[in-house]
Amino acid sequence: MMGSRDKRRMKRKRRAVSRNGQPSHSKGPIFQKRCLQPYQLCDDTSLDAIERQADWLLENVGMEFRGDTAAQELFREAGANVKQERVTLEAGHGRELCKTAPETFKLHSRNPHHTLKLGGDHLVLMPGYGSPFVTDLDQGRRYATIEDFHNYVKLTYSTPFLHHSGGTVVEPTDIPVNKRHLDMVFAHLSLSDKPFMGSVTSVDAANDSIEMARIIFGKDYLHQHAVMQANININSPFVFDETMSSTLRTYAKANQCVCVSPSIFGGAMGPVTPAAIAAQTLAEAMVGIALTQLVLPGCPVMMGSFHSTMNLRSGALTFGTPEANLVTMALSQLGNRLGVPIRSGGGQITASNAPDGQAMSDSANAMWSTLLSGAHQVWHAAGWLEGGLTMSYEKFIMDLDNCGAMLRMLQGMEVSEDTLAQDSYSAVSPGENFLTTDHTLAHYSNANYESLLPDTGPFERWKENGAKRADERANSVWKKMLNDYETPPLEENKLLRLTEYISARKSEMPDKWH
Amino acid sequence: MMGSRDKRRMKRKRRAVSRNGQPSHSKGPIFQKRCLQPYQLCDDTSLDAIERQADWLLENVGMEFRGDTAAQELFREAGANVKQERVTLEAGHGRELCKTAPETFKLHSRNPHHTLKLGGDHLVLMPGYGSPFVTDLDQGRRYATIEDFHNYVKLTYSTPFLHHSGGTVVEPTDIPVNKRHLDMVFAHLSLSDKPFMGSVTSVDAANDSIEMARIIFGKDYLHQHAVMQANININSPFVFDETMSSTLRTYAKANQCVCVSPSIFGGAMGPVTPAAIAAQTLAEAMVGIALTQLVLPGCPVMMGSFHSTMNLRSGALTFGTPEANLVTMALSQLGNRLGVPIRSGGGQITASNAPDGQAMSDSANAMWSTLLSGAHQVWHAAGWLEGGLTMSYEKFIMDLDNCGAMLRMLQGMEVSEDTLAQDSYSAVSPGENFLTTDHTLAHYSNANYESLLPDTGPFERWKENGAKRADERANSVWKKMLNDYETPPLEENKLLRLTEYISARKSEMPDKWH
Repeated sequence: MMGSRDKRRMKRKRRAVSRNGQPSHSKGPIFQKRCLQPYQLCDDTSLDAIERQADWLLENVGMEFRGDTAAQELFREAGANVKQERVTLEAGHGRELCKTAPETFKLHSRNPHHTLKLGGDHLVLMPGYGSPFVTDLDQGRRYATIEDFHNYVKLTYSTPFLHHSGGTVVEPTDIPVNKRHLDMVFAHLSLSDKPFMGSVTSVDAANDSIEMARIIFGKDYLHQHAVMQANININSPFVFDETMSSTLRTYAKANQCVCVSPSIFGGAMGPVTPAAIAAQTLAEAMVGIALTQLVLPGCPVMMGSFHSTMNLRSGALTFGTPEANLVTMALSQLGNRLGVPIRSGGGQITASNAPDGQAMSDSANAMWSTLLSGAHQVWHAAGWLEGGLTMSYEKFIMDLDNCGAMLRMLQGMEVSEDTLAQDSYSAVSPGENFLTTDHTLAHYSNANYESLLPDTGPFERWKENGAKRADERANSVWKKMLNDYETPPLEENKLLRLTEYISARKSEMPDKWH
Repeated sequence: MMGSRDKRRMKRKRRAVSRNGQPSHSKGPIFQKRCLQPYQLCDDTSLDAIERQADWLLENVGMEFRGDTAAQELFREAGANVKQERVTLEAGHGRELCKTAPETFKLHSRNPHHTLKLGGDHLVLMPGYGSPFVTDLDQGRRYATIEDFHNYVKLTYSTPFLHHSGGTVVEPTDIPVNKRHLDMVFAHLSLSDKPFMGSVTSVDAANDSIEMARIIFGKDYLHQHAVMQANININSPFVFDETMSSTLRTYAKANQCVCVSPSIFGGAMGPVTPAAIAAQTLAEAMVGIALTQLVLPGCPVMMGSFHSTMNLRSGALTFGTPEANLVTMALSQLGNRLGVPIRSGGGQITASNAPDGQAMSDSANAMWSTLLSGAHQVWHAAGWLEGGLTMSYEKFIMDLDNCGAMLRMLQGMEVSEDTLAQDSYSAVSPGENFLTTDHTLAHYSNANYESLLPDTGPFERWKENGAKRADERANSVWKKMLNDYETPPLEENKLLRLTEYISARKSEMPDKWH
């Protein structure tokens, strides 16, 4: 289609045109705002019915706060019905208690360029969370180590398509269980300057995370500014275990952001039907959000969800499925009606054991439902494989590429005199091409999102070059990114105080491996 | 999560429950209606601006009908401005000429169960079109033959997730060029009973397609009922070649359905900006639609598009990209405003050379934009690889699986007393599971879409079983489908008349290979 004369002409003309390159190697957050309107899956009648069901659940089932008398007491004082460990709320009371939660808030970074906004038309993408294993095409699947953890923090820092450093991106299994949080938070604070997640394995670990952030940001600063998030899972159905509710209270008290995520596989931790899962997620999340507001009214909080389907014949968990994606879309609407930012559903999730076609199809499907429905934060946007058991270096790159493409799409289609390009038609007759019009030359360098994956070329050339699949082509990309990584600057004295804090804390604790 | 006690209990309870299996082996069209509302990408102001630009293009650029004086004459009689081969239309005239096109119509099948509706909330998925090559994991990439063509017609007939048999699914390169259409239409008519596409390679080939359909459906029937479609591409920018416009006229005269598809790669056959491509596609399509209505007012016609992006540095074509997906979404809206059914954008398209992660990510992205925006017909919904150069047997199965999942999702989320499952909460206490509730047991067999691909199981078992990627697992599926295929019944005398017609026509023509 493009003749050699055209190519020469294009090359010549290009020189006169300023090259407005892709931001693919910038570290700054790009496209942190969406321009596309959220998709409305459910009509108001359906949403009303789901909310009524959530109210019914809180009134008739409620939430057990196991072992956490402080949480029970906070709800009792707020007028809830508390019997033994079970908290129930009259219809509407749960929603009422969530009202002080802010609709939007900032997550501050030590690099102001990386400070994020949650809620509204802002969007925050993050890497995977919690995998005990990693895999790459060179070494295969293995337990994750602190080196892998560092690698993922560096990769996340190096891409403009993830806005947030994440939390327990992978489990550093070579570090004692009771000391991991110190090394992980240290990595987020020193190898990156993007917002991050603190530890939730115990109140002590939460306090360590907060103390370490105070070293970087200053003690007073944290009281007024959220700089980190905590991942608070609910043991669905309707159980808050003590670690979760007490760390929730710890972060809320420090005015740091909690994300409350019920965890429901349809048919196991809730009924099998999507509408029921949406209602139960809303009900459970409201209790967690309410608790944050009882601890500190106005503190930042997100409505999260971790839901998916399972094959009810085999018991296998499944991800990126149509039923799960419907729940994701409905939850974005329900969260918006509740008035808190949403971390909805999945990101790029899959049950596949390899970074293959199924993995990317599942991931793309989950991503569309999450992004188009208007979720504000996307966890597991890169790397996740095997239902979260493994972080794949190659899938991380393939997912990043899709994050970039989706972020580009969310900028929408500009309709203007310039983009309608009326003038360019006077230069081209029917049957001719637009390759060298002034309009094409003015736009060619930034008109289209450019894939991170090396180009394959036509089949014959691709075959000559080893017939590399997408995952094989991604292999060289993460290596180059790690190779090119540069640590963001951090004041020497803060770094020193951090390492001293960690040494002191580690010396107080005997190693625990379970 | 599911203990052995649960599994036993579940198995026991299952016996009492009627098993409402997945329709994955039914041949009937399932989910031919969508329940989800189309996504509205552009607001009215933007759509108005695009439509004004389309009007401007028809007034100021127009369309060249090269060598087709009959088409020129039809437009002249309708009041268009015709100078030499160029037809221009005053603002609004193009849209006016499209007004007799029906908003919805039927595409009839000899099996009433497979008769389709186009337009409204109906949805028709089809296999790929036009690939000269095929590939599978056993034999690799090779020129397609009539055997491959037969295989794809059989596979398409065997799945409930494709509603339409397609056209030149692959090029049967072992048959002389001038005789291929006879064998292809014969295969669609005899190996399947789903609606199909006729040939557009010449007026003779179009007439042969129509005559062969008349043998099956009866001469008078065709005059009143559309039973096939024809793929009419426009040589964008703004050229109708004589073969295309004359075959368009042939099918329209026979009251058969034409799909008019401008073919635009941004930066080559049109400007590089998505808004311009949407406007140009609309303008060009309106001319083709208008021509069908000038031939036979009220005859069925679809607004099609074949647009994508290209890498303007390398000249490589790219598919499933965010910019192309935006155009797809806008075109669904524009087609709806024009009042004709839409074949929009892509289906499961990709430039990847292998059925890998990139292929499925591109495909899923293109599919979401097509389906969620409300397109009525999806071409290339299965099999397409290498920018359409190759049909992959394995990708065909992976794509089918995604078609099934997406069709399931388009049924939406039912919110009802049953799906909210209030009763099931009385049987489950906090912390317990729902695996054996009556509600789960009543719904488990049809609550979730079940993948066509064999289950992988957990990593260790998957590895023991050969660590098969999705494409490798798909390999056994298409073989089983072909093995299980059964020819739909066709009256002996019609079959005989068809073969006699083909023999007679073939004997009149010397073989042509180019």
